[in-house]
Amino acid sequence: MNKKNVIVGQSGGPTSAINSSLYGVVTGFLGSEKIDKIYGMVNGIEGFLAGKTTVLSDLTKEEMEILKTTPASYLKSCRFKLPEDLNDEVYPTLLKKFEEMNIGYFFYIGGNDSMDTVSKLSRYGEKVGSDMIFMGVPKTIDNDLIVTDHTPGYGSAAKYVATVIRQSAMDAGVYAAPCVTVVEVMGRHAGWLAASSVLARKFEGDAPQLIYLPEVAFDLDKCLEDVKKCLGKTNNVIVCVSEGIADKNGTFICEYAGASDKVDSFGHKTLVGSGRYLSEVIGEKLGVRTRALELGIAQRAGATLASATDIEEAAMAGSIAAEAALKGKSGMMVAFIREPGEDYKITYQLTDVNEVCNKEKKFPAEWITDNGTNIGEGYIKYALPLIQGTAPVKMKDGLPVFLDLAQHR
Amino acid sequence: MNKKNVIVGQSGGPTSAINSSLYGVVTGFLGSEKIDKIYGMVNGIEGFLAGKTTVLSDLTKEEMEILKTTPASYLKSCRFKLPEDLNDEVYPTLLKKFEEMNIGYFFYIGGNDSMDTVSKLSRYGEKVGSDMIFMGVPKTIDNDLIVTDHTPGYGSAAKYVATVIRQSAMDAGVYAAPCVTVVEVMGRHAGWLAASSVLARKFEGDAPQLIYLPEVAFDLDKCLEDVKKCLGKTNNVIVCVSEGIADKNGTFICEYAGASDKVDSFGHKTLVGSGRYLSEVIGEKLGVRTRALELGIAQRAGATLASATDIEEAAMAGSIAAEAALKGKSGMMVAFIREPGEDYKITYQLTDVNEVCNKEKKFPAEWITDNGTNIGEGYIKYALPLIQGTAPVKMKDGLPVFLDLAQHR
Repeated sequence: MNKKNVIVGQSGGPTSAINSSLYGVVTGFLGSEKIDKIYGMVNGIEGFLAGKTTVLSDLTKEEMEILKTTPASYLKSCRFKLPEDLNDEVYPTLLKKFEEMNIGYFFYIGGNDSMDTVSKLSRYGEKVGSDMIFMGVPKTIDNDLIVTDHTPGYGSAAKYVATVIRQSAMDAGVYAAPCVTVVEVMGRHAGWLAASSVLARKFEGDAPQLIYLPEVAFDLDKCLEDVKKCLGKTNNVIVCVSEGIADKNGTFICEYAGASDKVDSFGHKTLVGSGRYLSEVIGEKLGVRTRALELGIAQRAGATLASATDIEEAAMAGSIAAEAALKGKSGMMVAFIREPGEDYKITYQLTDVNEVCNKEKKFPAEWITDNGTNIGEGYIKYALPLIQGTAPVKMKDGLPVFLDLAQHR
Repeated sequence: MNKKNVIVGQSGGPTSAINSSLYGVVTGFLGSEKIDKIYGMVNGIEGFLAGKTTVLSDLTKEEMEILKTTPASYLKSCRFKLPEDLNDEVYPTLLKKFEEMNIGYFFYIGGNDSMDTVSKLSRYGEKVGSDMIFMGVPKTIDNDLIVTDHTPGYGSAAKYVATVIRQSAMDAGVYAAPCVTVVEVMGRHAGWLAASSVLARKFEGDAPQLIYLPEVAFDLDKCLEDVKKCLGKTNNVIVCVSEGIADKNGTFICEYAGASDKVDSFGHKTLVGSGRYLSEVIGEKLGVRTRALELGIAQRAGATLASATDIEEAAMAGSIAAEAALKGKSGMMVAFIREPGEDYKITYQLTDVNEVCNKEKKFPAEWITDNGTNIGEGYIKYALPLIQGTAPVKMKDGLPVFLDLAQHR
């Protein structure tokens, strides 16, 4: 039997679970007699075109276990969009390189754009009569892929956001004087991650009191009124905003800060996020002490707070994609289907990658409550199962141990 | 026997371990036949003067266990400095209130300023012949108290900082293009916490490549040269700075950003931290992509990453202070003394609070290496024992459970 090699890449923004899917893909192929080597492309398609690869099937069992709970893309990443025109020369170039390396299976772990890559390659492969198999494994903290109930990476990011906000809200409330803390959460177009801040609330009236998503047109004056009302009830107001909140004209709130084109003494423009900007306007207009907290890249790399459910599902998605590929399936992405009923249960289903790519799942309007300032019970019921359990990260010398490609090439 | 009551307060900035010390004080007194009730003052001395108290001895055993790993000050906090003049009327006012509540023991958990409060009250008590006992329990993430080897709260904050930087550095390095990430860590005058970022380094050359503390005069041009040199070796440079880095004239680097007194379209000044400012200057001057990451208040409230060693030592400090008070000691603070030898072992020692208050322990010059850009082995040996173990936080519904005064009054 003619053994084939596998190549796996990771693309787009990293998450705490993207390496769990890599673990799943590799373990899904290991032991199959159809497979020889499992390669990783370093820096995705872009790095692969530049000849950057590594051998994943050489990792020890212990290294593989560490990989499973390592945050960020072990294989590094890229933001590289394949051309729409399937006649572009990059396609035969890629296929030739695959052939040279005896690759039979191409796997790409990523979000929207990565599924677009899988779609294009599989359509090109079909066009030229290649028998190569192309598969997509989803990941994105944005949770904005259609078809799938949720995306690997989202549960861990949501758990991180809710935990850090719960902790920070307790910190923010220690002084008697009124204070408004504005927390900026990732999410440019969809509010899924900012919505997870509601999980931090321990009792009615507890922080966060106000949550603003990009799905609702942001009105600064109304927001100031909302904050004022909250200050009448508590001295410790926590406002959570998506980085991508925008007004009814589609202008991002963070763009308001840049409106004056102000430059500092070095002549460069100061960049201010929507959360920081909002905290300053609230302080100015309401005469109250404010603080800004940007969760930043830490929120998608919080491995010690990763959801065990998320990590396991991400690994399973990778394995199921590998098994399907071994059975000859191609041009597919693994989607999670939530079974009806009270108890949380998902099944894994292959879906045509063309159905998924370049589409976006917004946060449902029916889960946005209190005139666009709060998140309802429907979401809480949806999200709680996704953050259950804490992934078992290996610790050494008091710190988490991660697998770093720089030490393994 | 005439039973007395205890009152405990917390003051200054919160930490992940300050409630462990509160737990220690309460458990240290519980069961003593000299003691009736244990009160907490809410919002420290300031809240106490306004009549805000709670009863701690009513907490259940389960609640006490949750308290031990709850971040931020359970009893809230204040920044209230007692007058230097012991003839001020606040002193007899306070003592009268203590008498009315039959208080025999006054405990204050906090940093420098809190030890100043204990010092003044105990000196006033002595002056007027009061038999009240006044004790201090240290806490500060700044680690800047003298006499004690380290302060409760520091180990947990250091573990948080090192973990988040290790995770974020892996995230920052996923793209092939060069990128400089500037991480701003708390610490206005002392660099202890920013120094802990060195613990994130997994191998030589790994992030963070550059660390700047307030103890070394910051030179912007030299820093740009340092970063440039690092970019010659790696595409993923992580720079850690204390929020309080200042130039040789004592001007804070964050003040550079405000130098132009720029205001936005709403007429308010934009506040920029030293890290964000530095990331913008590096981007501008070196033409490289940069990112700023401010750890913010999350770094002193990271309960799920608290050091078990720190939490246990903090509790022990509280208990030992309580036991000493029951034996009649007053005007003292508990200090940690590190035993000589290879194995980490500390003993608890009472020290005159007057020796400690209003003094500051800077980061040792001999531990700052590589021309003011790195932290040496001496520090790593000092700090590693302080971050060992992860405090066991109770989890429910996938999130940490904390004790909140708002639910218990």
